[in-house]
Amino acid sequence: MFDIWRKVCKSYGFEEYDGPFIESFDIYAAKSGEEIVNEQLYSFEDRGGRKVAIRPEMTPTVARMVAQKHKELTWPVKWFSIPNLWRYEKPQRGRLREHFQLNVDIFGDENVTSDFEVINIAVDIMKAFGATSKTCEIRISNRRLIDDIYDLFEIPDNKKSVVSKCIDKIRKVTPDEFQDLLSNSSQLTSAQIDYITKFLQDPKPFMDRLSKDSRGTKEIEQLIGLFEKSENRLYVKFDPSIMRGFDYYTGSVFEQFDLNPNNTRSMYGGGRYDDLVDEFIDTKIPGVGWGMGDVTMKLFLENWKLLPDITSSIEYFVTLWPEDKENKFFSASNKISNELRKLGKSVDSYLTPNTKLDKQLKYADKKDIRNVIIIGDKEIESESITVKDMSTGKQETKRFDDFLNGLK
Amino acid sequence: MFDIWRKVCKSYGFEEYDGPFIESFDIYAAKSGEEIVNEQLYSFEDRGGRKVAIRPEMTPTVARMVAQKHKELTWPVKWFSIPNLWRYEKPQRGRLREHFQLNVDIFGDENVTSDFEVINIAVDIMKAFGATSKTCEIRISNRRLIDDIYDLFEIPDNKKSVVSKCIDKIRKVTPDEFQDLLSNSSQLTSAQIDYITKFLQDPKPFMDRLSKDSRGTKEIEQLIGLFEKSENRLYVKFDPSIMRGFDYYTGSVFEQFDLNPNNTRSMYGGGRYDDLVDEFIDTKIPGVGWGMGDVTMKLFLENWKLLPDITSSIEYFVTLWPEDKENKFFSASNKISNELRKLGKSVDSYLTPNTKLDKQLKYADKKDIRNVIIIGDKEIESESITVKDMSTGKQETKRFDDFLNGLK
Repeated sequence: MFDIWRKVCKSYGFEEYDGPFIESFDIYAAKSGEEIVNEQLYSFEDRGGRKVAIRPEMTPTVARMVAQKHKELTWPVKWFSIPNLWRYEKPQRGRLREHFQLNVDIFGDENVTSDFEVINIAVDIMKAFGATSKTCEIRISNRRLIDDIYDLFEIPDNKKSVVSKCIDKIRKVTPDEFQDLLSNSSQLTSAQIDYITKFLQDPKPFMDRLSKDSRGTKEIEQLIGLFEKSENRLYVKFDPSIMRGFDYYTGSVFEQFDLNPNNTRSMYGGGRYDDLVDEFIDTKIPGVGWGMGDVTMKLFLENWKLLPDITSSIEYFVTLWPEDKENKFFSASNKISNELRKLGKSVDSYLTPNTKLDKQLKYADKKDIRNVIIIGDKEIESESITVKDMSTGKQETKRFDDFLNGLK
Repeated sequence: MFDIWRKVCKSYGFEEYDGPFIESFDIYAAKSGEEIVNEQLYSFEDRGGRKVAIRPEMTPTVARMVAQKHKELTWPVKWFSIPNLWRYEKPQRGRLREHFQLNVDIFGDENVTSDFEVINIAVDIMKAFGATSKTCEIRISNRRLIDDIYDLFEIPDNKKSVVSKCIDKIRKVTPDEFQDLLSNSSQLTSAQIDYITKFLQDPKPFMDRLSKDSRGTKEIEQLIGLFEKSENRLYVKFDPSIMRGFDYYTGSVFEQFDLNPNNTRSMYGGGRYDDLVDEFIDTKIPGVGWGMGDVTMKLFLENWKLLPDITSSIEYFVTLWPEDKENKFFSASNKISNELRKLGKSVDSYLTPNTKLDKQLKYADKKDIRNVIIIGDKEIESESITVKDMSTGKQETKRFDDFLNGLK
């Protein structure tokens, strides 16, 4: 999985970086969502009395790194990383939770062309795993658009965040439950609730009522327009109910969904965060990116039977002659393993002296290694080896030099 | 660096694993050295009130994992990992310290042939970096041998650990200082101090005085004997002063030294730990392995000028035509980037609309990308591209299809 992640990111000219596992508590307190900071963060005081936290996500770290290095970098910056992250997740109380996440970000460009690029990387990764547009989809919205719509509906500032939280839950409740949720938690007027419901069903008429300068409208239309002209068009769509939990998103937001008909689930997401780097320096550096977790991805690939068969990458197994008083056979086997390694082969050599050949062959079989090389008394004398093909059972004795030359 | 680490480990048929970043505090308290536990460990209480610690080393984790999975594994187990580790190191108070470390271990075999194998992997890694036996050396000793020697010199049990700590410092002090250190800290008799000093200078006569059943003597002699018959013989030697800080080593111990004439330094080390897995289960599972840090390795490679020049791995840069009102050029550039990516090329595309071509070329130059593809009005009309070689400055206009077919 990591190999495919790396390959696609590199095909887009993105560079891999690493960041520290522990950060000052404050960088999460400032911008990550409340739920993460209050309930899921591993934080503690270090020996110097500073409050620190184990990273629950990578975005604040990469924003800080970009801020600190901004004078040395070539702009725009296109970076990816596969960090391990920790969250103390409630449903699994009693278990420490770690996962790996591919993070892909562009810093220093505020155009939707960059949003388009990072989303395309996500789509290309799915395609590289063998996924089609029938199995997954990326749904896109825009925070600026939602803000304009809230203003259009005259929703007061202090209620916006509650309304957004309700919209975020829309896929998990019935339409009636959604209306109840909105009215109970936000105390909007019934007209406002009606507007929001209609907007989510069909946003176009409401977007047409916004000013022509509405940046959110322009951005979402441009971004969807770019996809319509691209070969990944079937993998993305506009969905105004996409919200994302993090407080730091400012423009495009998106989530990828598993289209499993029995269980449509959000897999991960991302978005544009144009104000996050400002937390660390005075210069404004816009950013856009996403984080794709290994656990969710594995589940998706399993469900759609896209996980590749893991066959052994070990090409040769070199046995150790069972009776070997002076390590004569060990040194002979070792020499053969080393010659094969010099040719770039992956070679597992048996190391435990005085083990019956049967047991050694069983080991090779369990480890799914196809070619076994046997060296005994006769073989040493004639400078030859016996090569056994474990899948056919056939074996053949060859001069060692001939065998090596054949491989070259 | 990680690529070379992985490549050599895989050439030995070792499998990569991952482990959790946080462990119960107890697994370090039990076996890691005192200095690590008391001064360098990041420990805290999690939200469930358990005392946990961020891993300062990988060996306890891998021992625990092997113990938990021992019924499912194929023995012997040959594993490697490149974890990030944390230590709160004193000289850098005020800074959090993280590093990556390649860990290579064999579990389930107690023979020195396995010690030989893991040390050979270390040597082959150094050779893969271009290091010769004039630049580095692995020095090997054996804890069992040292125990037998202590018994021969009648050193009381309660003084052994202090004596070992003094021996561990021998390379940092003069011979006189070493004798003072021994006599002040351990209160040995002057005869004992004399014996130890002589043993460290020339161990052979004392080893000959040990019983023929001395396992430590046999092991070190066998191990050095295996190396004498191997092509890595110049990279290793027996050095009885090698101690290693961790309490859990039981047999072979070894350290790799940088042979920089101005500053011979220990780079990292490892050894055999036959009792560590017993901490977690009743079954006895011997182990041997080492951990090689990225920071020390980088320093070594820099000093010996072995760090490879990092040239850009990005093969193409696709520009964006500066005047582009309807994203016509963007989509054309995007299509070309994608076709190149499908051929396995690494392609960086410019994403910021309305950027002068000069500025885009400067970006490509800074990022050391050799081939630049320019698409403008004329090119779109004739379905062609202009390819500029940044190293020669030459440029050529080609039909896009011809260009792609040329690459295939």
